Amino acid sequence: MYSFNNDYSEGACSEIINVLNTSNLCQSVGYGLDEYCESARKRIQKQLHCDSCDVHFVVGGTQCNQIVIASALRPHEAVIAAIGGHINVHETGAIEACGHKVLVGDGSDGKLTGEGVRKVVEAHSDEHMVKPAMVYLSDATEVGTVYTKAELSDLRKVCDEYGLYMYLDGARLPMALVAEDNDVKFDDLQHYCDVCYLGGTKCGALFGEAVVIFNEALKKDFRYQIKQRGGLLAKGRLLGLQFDTLFKDDLYLRLARHAVDMAQRLQQGMIELGISMYVTTTTNQIFPIMNRDLIQHMEKHYLFQSWERLDETHEAVRFVTSWACEEEAVDECLAWIKQAIDENPDIMKQ
Amino acid sequence: MYSFNNDYSEGACSEIINVLNTSNLCQSVGYGLDEYCESARKRIQKQLHCDSCDVHFVVGGTQCNQIVIASALRPHEAVIAAIGGHINVHETGAIEACGHKVLVGDGSDGKLTGEGVRKVVEAHSDEHMVKPAMVYLSDATEVGTVYTKAELSDLRKVCDEYGLYMYLDGARLPMALVAEDNDVKFDDLQHYCDVCYLGGTKCGALFGEAVVIFNEALKKDFRYQIKQRGGLLAKGRLLGLQFDTLFKDDLYLRLARHAVDMAQRLQQGMIELGISMYVTTTTNQIFPIMNRDLIQHMEKHYLFQSWERLDETHEAVRFVTSWACEEEAVDECLAWIKQAIDENPDIMKQ
Amino acid sequence: MYSFNNDYSEGACSEIINVLNTSNLCQSVGYGLDEYCESARKRIQKQLHCDSCDVHFVVGGTQCNQIVIASALRPHEAVIAAIGGHINVHETGAIEACGHKVLVGDGSDGKLTGEGVRKVVEAHSDEHMVKPAMVYLSDATEVGTVYTKAELSDLRKVCDEYGLYMYLDGARLPMALVAEDNDVKFDDLQHYCDVCYLGGTKCGALFGEAVVIFNEALKKDFRYQIKQRGGLLAKGRLLGLQFDTLFKDDLYLRLARHAVDMAQRLQQGMIELGISMYVTTTTNQIFPIMNRDLIQHMEKHYLFQSWERLDETHEAVRFVTSWACEEEAVDECLAWIKQAIDENPDIMKQ
Amino acid sequence: MYSFNNDYSEGACSEIINVLNTSNLCQSVGYGLDEYCESARKRIQKQLHCDSCDVHFVVGGTQCNQIVIASALRPHEAVIAAIGGHINVHETGAIEACGHKVLVGDGSDGKLTGEGVRKVVEAHSDEHMVKPAMVYLSDATEVGTVYTKAELSDLRKVCDEYGLYMYLDGARLPMALVAEDNDVKFDDLQHYCDVCYLGGTKCGALFGEAVVIFNEALKKDFRYQIKQRGGLLAKGRLLGLQFDTLFKDDLYLRLARHAVDMAQRLQQGMIELGISMYVTTTTNQIFPIMNRDLIQHMEKHYLFQSWERLDETHEAVRFVTSWACEEEAVDECLAWIKQAIDENPDIMKQ
Repeated sequence: MYSFNNDYSEGACSEIINVLNTSNLCQSVGYGLDEYCESARKRIQKQLHCDSCDVHFVVGGTQCNQIVIASALRPHEAVIAAIGGHINVHETGAIEACGHKVLVGDGSDGKLTGEGVRKVVEAHSDEHMVKPAMVYLSDATEVGTVYTKAELSDLRKVCDEYGLYMYLDGARLPMALVAEDNDVKFDDLQHYCDVCYLGGTKCGALFGEAVVIFNEALKKDFRYQIKQRGGLLAKGRLLGLQFDTLFKDDLYLRLARHAVDMAQRLQQGMIELGISMYVTTTTNQIFPIMNRDLIQHMEKHYLFQSWERLDETHEAVRFVTSWACEEEAVDECLAWIKQAIDENPDIMKQ
Repeated sequence: MYSFNNDYSEGACSEIINVLNTSNLCQSVGYGLDEYCESARKRIQKQLHCDSCDVHFVVGGTQCNQIVIASALRPHEAVIAAIGGHINVHETGAIEACGHKVLVGDGSDGKLTGEGVRKVVEAHSDEHMVKPAMVYLSDATEVGTVYTKAELSDLRKVCDEYGLYMYLDGARLPMALVAEDNDVKFDDLQHYCDVCYLGGTKCGALFGEAVVIFNEALKKDFRYQIKQRGGLLAKGRLLGLQFDTLFKDDLYLRLARHAVDMAQRLQQGMIELGISMYVTTTTNQIFPIMNRDLIQHMEKHYLFQSWERLDETHEAVRFVTSWACEEEAVDECLAWIKQAIDENPDIMKQ
Repeated sequence: MYSFNNDYSEGACSEIINVLNTSNLCQSVGYGLDEYCESARKRIQKQLHCDSCDVHFVVGGTQCNQIVIASALRPHEAVIAAIGGHINVHETGAIEACGHKVLVGDGSDGKLTGEGVRKVVEAHSDEHMVKPAMVYLSDATEVGTVYTKAELSDLRKVCDEYGLYMYLDGARLPMALVAEDNDVKFDDLQHYCDVCYLGGTKCGALFGEAVVIFNEALKKDFRYQIKQRGGLLAKGRLLGLQFDTLFKDDLYLRLARHAVDMAQRLQQGMIELGISMYVTTTTNQIFPIMNRDLIQHMEKHYLFQSWERLDETHEAVRFVTSWACEEEAVDECLAWIKQAIDENPDIMKQ
Repeated sequence: MYSFNNDYSEGACSEIINVLNTSNLCQSVGYGLDEYCESARKRIQKQLHCDSCDVHFVVGGTQCNQIVIASALRPHEAVIAAIGGHINVHETGAIEACGHKVLVGDGSDGKLTGEGVRKVVEAHSDEHMVKPAMVYLSDATEVGTVYTKAELSDLRKVCDEYGLYMYLDGARLPMALVAEDNDVKFDDLQHYCDVCYLGGTKCGALFGEAVVIFNEALKKDFRYQIKQRGGLLAKGRLLGLQFDTLFKDDLYLRLARHAVDMAQRLQQGMIELGISMYVTTTTNQIFPIMNRDLIQHMEKHYLFQSWERLDETHEAVRFVTSWACEEEAVDECLAWIKQAIDENPDIMKQ
């Protein structure tokens, strides 16, 4: 049964596996102070055109979010996120467990707007309420959409006006950067963000995310925060070698591009088969609307995720493709759907 | 300048002041183990027709909420509140500071509904999300409305179905109990709530709230929680003597009735003067809609709170009366408004 | 049964009770923004010869400690205390509940030394360990001893060297300031401390402590911290009027002097009766060593606290006197002991 | 430069690397629900002779400690550890960051004793102090010593008497189990511990620890705790395949035995060269006492860790061997020391 369930179903790209194998028995110092990490840091700085940023590696995204947010905020300060923001819904209260409220800001298509942030800040006016101190964005968002430079710029302006940090969760950043409707580049990040992380888990690595700190005020004692939240990997070399590999020869974006191409091929194919989209995306997640009969039939052959019940007979579902997804798998899936429709046109009833 | 700003502008009722004076130099043991506290506990148990409940006294309402919630929940568990619930907005993230997410449930007029709670619980289905474990209600609510027995019963049913604790924030419970449209009695509390607190600060005391624990599972080591959150008052006698006095000769409800009578007199008088209400309440908070010109004029003579901007020229404002509010003050206020209108009928323009 | 159990057995001094009575029905704004608080702030600034310090009032000492420490430290930072420091033992882990480790520094007689602090700091050298960021002192200490200027100066030097905040818990500061062997004055506090609190509960008030912040870096958003930890008293006027009264006409130190005089009279009398002291103090706590037979006999007539078991037959116990303790009570106690000894000389066996 | 600095300098054993390679592109479900994890759970249950225990996999040891302790304790509860216990010193306050105090119990050689635990519990008698609720042990300890069955039995008895959980940190458990002076077996764990973890990072894995929960009361909602603390690895298969491999064909203990053999060979060789030991261990950490001249000379050729300064000229240092350490490396090291001594006998001066 083929899985379009998410983009972390497979292991790592072959380039990473190779380095893992050849370096396995070399001794290195622990906790991210080894030469692989050092080299990876340099590559990332170079890619971001920013010599002065700090780069730290941790295993997973929830860890990044906890560590960055808990490190930056004082106890009474809160972080603003979109209603579907990962920290607001899908991290089991990890941010609250560090003592901070997540405030929901307005926006649409999974994105926050400058205006949405402004409204939250202005509604929090005195010491009986938490004080908003950081904006949290995901790009690509949790529903596969991407921020434009104009949108980021709006958000940055509001952040500057009210003294908020801007933090970008880049679990799927490379997929955003290669999207058709994207105009953001790696070099832009330092101008919009105080801190961000670049996702490895969803783009070719076994695991690992790279936290990049641009704002000097957020750099101090960051390794203490990593350690305190259980994020300092003993064999830190494993994180270093993966990012060192990903940021060599443009591999990171190449893997992302493939993942996005596969999703777009699938989306286009479904549309041609008459399936409409809940939201049309340009990254590696797509959200077709399907008749429940089709879903039930398809679940016997494919793994994908239920997203939202729309009415008695229809549901939005999510298909995700990864860097490892092969073109054949996409085409087979489309062929399978076509045949299912041919056999029983009723399952397409809108 | 007379204040209708809130119900904690004055000190304590004379009965409490008397006991405070006469007992001032008596020595007593500390931390709530004295005979005043003991007597107050007995009176409250009797009033609630429940010998088996535990009663603890703390200084303020935010403390109650922190202590009760942090004591009851495990780290991944969350509490469901109405969107305007005190813990959700006006406690500077005190619940999150103890590690717990506050989830917002649907309802109206400041109240949660059983259906609203059910929707939240059903949306939190796996370990990637927090687990709802408690329902938080305020009665009277933050907007002066009261719960009926039918509404509490609905909520209780959902709590039983999903294994949630029900916690009632009774900062203004006595005002709810004496409200015209109320059908809840002190004896009912044990059937609906696992734990609640009875407010003293807003009903005749200098300060102090009484936490009442009905559910055996929530009783263990509760004094440790009070101490850890800074809520164990050294001279605990002060809390005991106040509640001992309030629960003698029905004083508690008599004070509440007076506060409510004054607000209702004010509300009725305003309506007769042609002022409409944002929401018509039956307790000691009222929410007239006023033309901004009237507000600005009135602010020079009265203290009251801005509540919500409705349009270019109108705003909902809040007037609160306390146990100490005199009938003359209400009548003078109404006379003052009448005169203001007579002098300038324009300030009534809708 | 007369109590020497602690210094919070009685209510408040008559000066405070008077103001409480006369101001009871005056309306005032809430949460410490009233004129009593304002006046009290001014008096404290004047007494401390420091116009620029911030002064906040909260109900109790554990609250002060939680709020000050949680407000000042980042998540990985720790506070250094003496082994018997109140925050280390007697606050049910209130500091840890805010996320911070309490490190124990060397010293003697309940006091920390500069050298003790230095050793702790030097032992915490990298990000695998917490980072010491604050020194916590009690003056008078938990065992009734007082710091000299030389000792405070040593500590300050180490704090400056390593960038640590110095925080003085002054629950019994006035008793220290009037002690015979004390050379510290109110004006010195600003030179030694970044932040401190002046105790009211143990010196004439019903409750209340005044947090005084000297260091600019610790002032920002402090009221948010108070609110978040449940420490913002609705009827804040009650705190203001008490400190306003205490800091008028030198009342605060006069009350402390009386408390100390009574304890010293009791200590001296006991020594003359042949009772030796576990540690000889100059404040309002004394620590006689008693034969267990004497203790058991005396417990039927007096309340006092067991302190430390010394051998099979002897124990150190604690007697505390308050501002309200009358000379007659001390003399009667001494007479009672004398008679007990006369009746049964064996109870004095060493 | 050869490293004896720790036991996590190399990658993984070849058996693990093989499975990693062959399974790399297989799709699997995320978050530890895959078939590798399922198989690994079964193998561990079988090895421990306990079908009913729950087994969860997380990436690192600090994570295990945070998750287990925060999941088990209520806010006012504390955990007792030896003074050098990893959670007490080397986790940057991770336990306190979850709100819990770490209490230090007496013992020796890095071990806690039943008597030491009893003293701590008895000293914590009321709600002004934290309540001890769990005992934390490391076996092997942080100084390479191992617990005997008699010692664990003593501890268990005290735990039962006072209702404490017993938690064993088994980061180096396999090294303890193969030690010459050990009499504990895998099957014994369920009788002594409520919960423990079996270390992978230090015994052949790239990373990963297996939490094993025996006590029914600690099992509920454990996956929520893992997720909340950032410990739920997306590609959970990586953890499963490693433990599945380690618990096949006794590989886990074989790797541990090799590590221990190498350390013992090095210890024995050093003793024969006239070097005395700070503490003689039977596991894979050894603690020779060296003249500072020898240390400085040796640091140019070997990596090892400074442990404790003993006097002007001597220091205890730590050498650790891993599963990957080759016999040749040990012998070369001994030969190197011998030659150093031959060239300059002074560096052996005691």
